[in-house]
Amino acid sequence: MNRSMIRFLLSKLLLIEALLLLVPLLVAFIYQEDQTVILSILLTMGILLVLGGLGVFFKPKNYHIYTKDGLMIVALCWVLWSFFGALPFVFSGQIPNLIDAFFETSSGFTTTGATILPDVSVLSHSLLFWRSFAHLIGGMGVLVFALAIMENSKNGHLEVMRAEVPGPVFGKVVSKLKDTAQILYVIYLVMFAVFTASLCIAGMPVFDSFIIAMGTAGTGGFAVYNDSIAHYNSPLLTYLISFGMLAFGVNFNLYYLLLIRKVKAFFSDEELKTYIGIVVASTLMITFNIFNLYGSISKSLEYAFFEVSTIMTTTGFGVTDLTKWPLFSQYILLLLMFIGGSAGSTAGGFKVMRALIVSKITKNQILSSLYPNRILSLHINHSVLDKETQHGVLKYLGIYLMLFISLVFFLTLDNNDLMTVISAAASTFNNIGPMLGTNETFAIFSPFSKFLMSLAMIAGRLEIYPLLLLFLPKTWSKT
Amino acid sequence: MNRSMIRFLLSKLLLIEALLLLVPLLVAFIYQEDQTVILSILLTMGILLVLGGLGVFFKPKNYHIYTKDGLMIVALCWVLWSFFGALPFVFSGQIPNLIDAFFETSSGFTTTGATILPDVSVLSHSLLFWRSFAHLIGGMGVLVFALAIMENSKNGHLEVMRAEVPGPVFGKVVSKLKDTAQILYVIYLVMFAVFTASLCIAGMPVFDSFIIAMGTAGTGGFAVYNDSIAHYNSPLLTYLISFGMLAFGVNFNLYYLLLIRKVKAFFSDEELKTYIGIVVASTLMITFNIFNLYGSISKSLEYAFFEVSTIMTTTGFGVTDLTKWPLFSQYILLLLMFIGGSAGSTAGGFKVMRALIVSKITKNQILSSLYPNRILSLHINHSVLDKETQHGVLKYLGIYLMLFISLVFFLTLDNNDLMTVISAAASTFNNIGPMLGTNETFAIFSPFSKFLMSLAMIAGRLEIYPLLLLFLPKTWSKT
Repeated sequence: MNRSMIRFLLSKLLLIEALLLLVPLLVAFIYQEDQTVILSILLTMGILLVLGGLGVFFKPKNYHIYTKDGLMIVALCWVLWSFFGALPFVFSGQIPNLIDAFFETSSGFTTTGATILPDVSVLSHSLLFWRSFAHLIGGMGVLVFALAIMENSKNGHLEVMRAEVPGPVFGKVVSKLKDTAQILYVIYLVMFAVFTASLCIAGMPVFDSFIIAMGTAGTGGFAVYNDSIAHYNSPLLTYLISFGMLAFGVNFNLYYLLLIRKVKAFFSDEELKTYIGIVVASTLMITFNIFNLYGSISKSLEYAFFEVSTIMTTTGFGVTDLTKWPLFSQYILLLLMFIGGSAGSTAGGFKVMRALIVSKITKNQILSSLYPNRILSLHINHSVLDKETQHGVLKYLGIYLMLFISLVFFLTLDNNDLMTVISAAASTFNNIGPMLGTNETFAIFSPFSKFLMSLAMIAGRLEIYPLLLLFLPKTWSKT
Repeated sequence: MNRSMIRFLLSKLLLIEALLLLVPLLVAFIYQEDQTVILSILLTMGILLVLGGLGVFFKPKNYHIYTKDGLMIVALCWVLWSFFGALPFVFSGQIPNLIDAFFETSSGFTTTGATILPDVSVLSHSLLFWRSFAHLIGGMGVLVFALAIMENSKNGHLEVMRAEVPGPVFGKVVSKLKDTAQILYVIYLVMFAVFTASLCIAGMPVFDSFIIAMGTAGTGGFAVYNDSIAHYNSPLLTYLISFGMLAFGVNFNLYYLLLIRKVKAFFSDEELKTYIGIVVASTLMITFNIFNLYGSISKSLEYAFFEVSTIMTTTGFGVTDLTKWPLFSQYILLLLMFIGGSAGSTAGGFKVMRALIVSKITKNQILSSLYPNRILSLHINHSVLDKETQHGVLKYLGIYLMLFISLVFFLTLDNNDLMTVISAAASTFNNIGPMLGTNETFAIFSPFSKFLMSLAMIAGRLEIYPLLLLFLPKTWSKT
């Protein structure tokens, strides 16, 4: 382990967070906010600059990064950004409790969108903007972001990025890694800009458009009002946001294929087809199931499509009261929580690609017990998926389930009902946001549960391994 | 596929079921029951003798059994025995609905113990005995039973037994298969006899002792009264039955080791140690968690130990109102539902051995992401577990989860609450019996759900593959 290099890179990342805080500072000036808010942001920036400045002052002797170091940097970066990003909320008194503020900020950076605020209007424009801005930054991964803007210090960033980019297979779109990061970020930001403009044109106020677009682009889910998207009461906006969320739940490498005119490759992608298939099938089943509740096909379809899109892409905006939905529809949403968006998108969850691979492995296993002597291979996008990757996916499933089961175990100590607890665990671990079965916020949980769920959000966002590493005693041993 | 051999063996098995019905017939005579009951049993026996007689009349040309045939025979045998075993309930009018009776009988043979009877006193002594007698027969697997008593028709029974005996690894205790079956059955019946006698000595009425001992030995759970074991209101009996259930949840091969004086091998068995560890840990956590409810350590411990034993061994007797328990304790029981008893015992579920392997694989996976170049092997009982078996267990987990998720999917259509639906699915699929979160019986479900759960019980008992085969179109195609 190259400790001084870890220290050096983390310090750089703290300096970057100080820069990012300029954005909410600007918002605070625009809305002529209270001095307390402005001072809270400035104080946080000061702390970050001092700590980061001290850390980069002594250059490391050796710039080499080992795999383990890469994972450590990723995990620590998200924990540190969430911790320091929470300070303005605490200093300003808008979220006085540190654990609550840590929950809210990690919910931002991990693009979860789960909140402990029963009433979001306690936040000033600047800090409301800050938690949503965290969605935008976190969407593509904070380190892909860092990579895209940092001057390339020698080598080794591949390890960092491999730990960061979601999905079972990591492919660079172009040969140089920094270029890949920049291309992906440009696509992402252009889509974000187009989407913000669309919302404005469709009649949403400008400030709201930014907040909602950041929540959509990062598949986060923080909104402007307590009643989220229901506030606008506009089918046009509901559909626009639904399609927007779905667009950001697609593998960004596919958009690059579109850019270089490989249209056929785009449309024949198996994960994309599965993703669309699941959205369509779920929407139809729910529309049918909730028809009695709303009495019209158009309203049922609008709500079903929105909720399926928002849960499947792990965004988590709200548009209607889900506690009134029949169990069948709630269960479909619960299942979608565990599938999540596409690999290489801004979405969280287990990922469509992994679900696809697991279902193909299962199918093969059934066939192989029928025809023991037949050799079965597994194809994804017309090429054979090697055994190594297959087993990797199964092992990931094993760890994923164990952690999920353990998380629920500790959350049950708060003695809520099972649907609340399971959906809270699924919602945070898969970076979604809302709970099923209750209209309360995460404020109902104990501080211990909230802290655990904060870690679950980060673990889920980083696909488990990096964060797990932090908790292994061996990581911290000197030998 | 050797269709005529399948027909021949299944017919033989129907004749065996006709013989088994002599037992409830005897009970009916002892209790001088209504003519309707006696005629119902006789009519069922007649149907079985005619069908079975016709089927064995034409001997097959070729006695060879392929793997696929073995699986088919196993699956069809359980479906047929459950179907024909249900007829006395229907004919006598005690359970007039065929789907209900099918549910109750498959619940018997699969040693589930789930009931659709809100009031069990509608059953006469003979038919109450019959459904519990099914536990005793089903406990060791109906085909191990058949194998132990059938004259050995050439070969091929290995395939049948491999499909029948639960657990990831199949080992014969002695070289000849028929001998293995007989040894296991003798151990089983001796333990059953000793346990029945113990119950009598501890003060339970003779008839009840037989019923409860059959429910315990088969890890089934059908009892005599609606309030199950709570009826006797005796801590002595509660503890006696707890230890009894635990004894039948141990791998029977281990008892064979004890018989041949390999005491050290018995006590050093990893699965046994894990099994005991889980029981002790769960009992302690629940005792602590429910202490406030009962106000005394002795009562809390008694109930906690009983419920842990009955759920873990997939027996499913009742001793207290679980709906009053805090969610934490309920969740522990829910988790135990998915672990189940030991491989090679009469218990159902995923099995301790598989859970142990999955957790070791997970641990290795975490270590391998820490030290990518280290070669990690997986040991069970001091010997290396080959990759083939490891992947088999993971694939089994995949199929198990997919089926479980699908089962819950269909059950949610009845619109009960999530705890009821999840525990009903877990309870039937893992052959346990009771639901958590409700005091109702399975009568609350629709006929479609009850039919699905009947199949789930059989699928769970046979560890999925054999029953799955029946539903693949390819199985029935001529080519």
